[in-house]
Amino acid sequence: MRWSKSFISTLKEVPEKAESVSHRLMLRSGLIRMLFSGAYSYLPLGLKVLRNIEQIVREEMDACGAQELLLPGLQPQDLWVKSGRDEQMGQTMIRFVDRRGRKICLGPTHEEVITDVVKNQVRSYKQLPVILYQIQTKYRDELRPRFGVMRACEFIMKDAYSFDIDDKGLDKNYQLMLEAYKKIFSRCGLSFLTTEADCGVMGGKESCEFMVPASSGEDVILHCSKCNLTKIKEEGLEKCPQCKGALEEQTVIEVGHVFKLGTKYSKVSNAVFTGADGKIKPIVMGCYGIGVSRLIAAIIEQNNDNDGIIWPKEVSPYDLLVAPLNITDSKTKEVAEKIYKELSIEFNVLLDDRDERPGMKFKDADLIGIPLRVIIGEKNLKAGKVELVKRQNKETSFVEYDTAVSCIKKELLG
Amino acid sequence: MRWSKSFISTLKEVPEKAESVSHRLMLRSGLIRMLFSGAYSYLPLGLKVLRNIEQIVREEMDACGAQELLLPGLQPQDLWVKSGRDEQMGQTMIRFVDRRGRKICLGPTHEEVITDVVKNQVRSYKQLPVILYQIQTKYRDELRPRFGVMRACEFIMKDAYSFDIDDKGLDKNYQLMLEAYKKIFSRCGLSFLTTEADCGVMGGKESCEFMVPASSGEDVILHCSKCNLTKIKEEGLEKCPQCKGALEEQTVIEVGHVFKLGTKYSKVSNAVFTGADGKIKPIVMGCYGIGVSRLIAAIIEQNNDNDGIIWPKEVSPYDLLVAPLNITDSKTKEVAEKIYKELSIEFNVLLDDRDERPGMKFKDADLIGIPLRVIIGEKNLKAGKVELVKRQNKETSFVEYDTAVSCIKKELLG
Repeated sequence: MRWSKSFISTLKEVPEKAESVSHRLMLRSGLIRMLFSGAYSYLPLGLKVLRNIEQIVREEMDACGAQELLLPGLQPQDLWVKSGRDEQMGQTMIRFVDRRGRKICLGPTHEEVITDVVKNQVRSYKQLPVILYQIQTKYRDELRPRFGVMRACEFIMKDAYSFDIDDKGLDKNYQLMLEAYKKIFSRCGLSFLTTEADCGVMGGKESCEFMVPASSGEDVILHCSKCNLTKIKEEGLEKCPQCKGALEEQTVIEVGHVFKLGTKYSKVSNAVFTGADGKIKPIVMGCYGIGVSRLIAAIIEQNNDNDGIIWPKEVSPYDLLVAPLNITDSKTKEVAEKIYKELSIEFNVLLDDRDERPGMKFKDADLIGIPLRVIIGEKNLKAGKVELVKRQNKETSFVEYDTAVSCIKKELLG
Repeated sequence: MRWSKSFISTLKEVPEKAESVSHRLMLRSGLIRMLFSGAYSYLPLGLKVLRNIEQIVREEMDACGAQELLLPGLQPQDLWVKSGRDEQMGQTMIRFVDRRGRKICLGPTHEEVITDVVKNQVRSYKQLPVILYQIQTKYRDELRPRFGVMRACEFIMKDAYSFDIDDKGLDKNYQLMLEAYKKIFSRCGLSFLTTEADCGVMGGKESCEFMVPASSGEDVILHCSKCNLTKIKEEGLEKCPQCKGALEEQTVIEVGHVFKLGTKYSKVSNAVFTGADGKIKPIVMGCYGIGVSRLIAAIIEQNNDNDGIIWPKEVSPYDLLVAPLNITDSKTKEVAEKIYKELSIEFNVLLDDRDERPGMKFKDADLIGIPLRVIIGEKNLKAGKVELVKRQNKETSFVEYDTAVSCIKKELLG
């Protein structure tokens, strides 16, 4: 992509009202724009990051044998009344009546719907176990939308659901998902903690949250550095209940939550199967959520410096930024175009072909945070060289421009 | 994918209330399931088809230099009042008031929102032209949802928008989109017609619809076989207005609609740019829609026989079906597994490893419509052969099972 033709639009000013680092950087680097409080447009650069995260999630889900489907955003309110969650959801769930008088809600989550779908397909133990998932837009009427995509009224989730014949099967799939989640968050460049959690409105009997330490986090955990115990903050808990060690507070962002639901939803909607013994039993369920759009913010919270975003490799919108300093110099342009064209065959390359001052190009490059950039300047070219800069630590090196393409390729694949 | 582990679920019975061929076949082959009238879940097989269509659309949009973004489903009703379309949309647009009293609607389309986004990014003629698009879920309160995904309350659209400095630029982008649309629909295996259309609620001055002839189509066009004129049906039009030839009626499905909007939306929201001459002018816009989820139905309407769906190659959920007739025969199983494993490296292969009667496997294979299948039976194996069947014409051929993998590969790439 040529920057001059792209819809990339950076802001010099720090936006007012953006309270967290990630929110400020998402706005400044032009990843998102607010339509109204709680609803954001993903501009092309932001959508690329979102798609990269989705792809990581999809690959790790598929590797578990989970199968992707897509459920409607519109749901009959009925299903929620039946499960007892209509009242529990309170004003957070968006409801309306359609022109035919049907009571409809916008799904804040999909346990009721997926149970309904599976109930109509599964008859026998032979069809189990099965794990289904979707990557889909959810809606919530948030009282106080905050921090950009971190707490929004419209957001993208990955929600997976496991269906088993018994608790043993559920335990196995739950463990499988825990391992997949660790891979997903690691590939996203995150350091994270897991913590036992309350089942809350979801119901069920065991639950675990994946938490990303960040100063803008809205949740607080207590961590014991001695025995490594991690707990959601409880008032009055002064010492580690396990080893009596000192507890430290840490603000965190919740990025994933898994639940052993058991038979709560299957019993309510009569989602049953015939066992090998001929007996009819309720399906044993688990559910597994990841806040996909929220992950963008969490990644930025942990991967930035004063100058901007530092994208982890796998989620970066581009693999490489090619930055010719003076596009009006014919040799500079020639070398930049050559590197851009040759590497674009295999990689996602952004060419900063704008006729702008080098200072502005450097500032924008730091801001949008592509992990590797190659700088092409007249002085270095005269010495037969171009400059490679790693965004992470601003480490620079010089390579012969004749061999630049193969050097960069090596770096990108390394 | 192994059929025995998959969430594929076919129906023997013809579903009641499904009025069109495509709706019946989508339900019978387990592509979709109804949640409630007008809202459908895409099961894994249906989602694969949807993703394939999305991929074709994305590739052809990207080839035009269009850039993908993602706009919110939630929109402030305000924007619609300002453009004058709030009233025009009537009860079709879903509206609600959130807990803070904000009037919100669920986007049935995004002209207002995209104009707002572009208005805040574009200042100068140097940033134009630009084409932006999204593949996104739309909502409509349909009075009479019909024919499954054909007329639903929730559906997936590709909506693209072009932004130019003048009419000449718009004409060029409009033409570019027309050509891209022809490629998209051809790759989807559709025969289609284009017809001049009314701009209706969208506004603007020129418009063209892409129509797929099908018996279940809800629109009617008049076609002159002599001079090839195609027009939306008008009552009282007896002869071709161009050549006085006879007109034939044809029911069609609208799959695409493109509009030269001009400055209708940019004037309303003051989306202006500074020209090369220093003058401030409104941006000249076009908009270009494709009914992505509806395309699944349109493709099936044109590609089926009495036994089921006949998927065109590029949209088929799988490239190949491997069908061992008797999975309990060890040689059959061995050959089937070998072909499945070796071809799965490069292709999407479905292995029907169910312990079912051959008759049922054949019926299901015809129903779900994978273009190519390889049948592995004991009799043929004894003669050193396996059977290849093309779903399109049921043409069969026999290949040596030692060379089966390379023969099938040739067929799939051909």
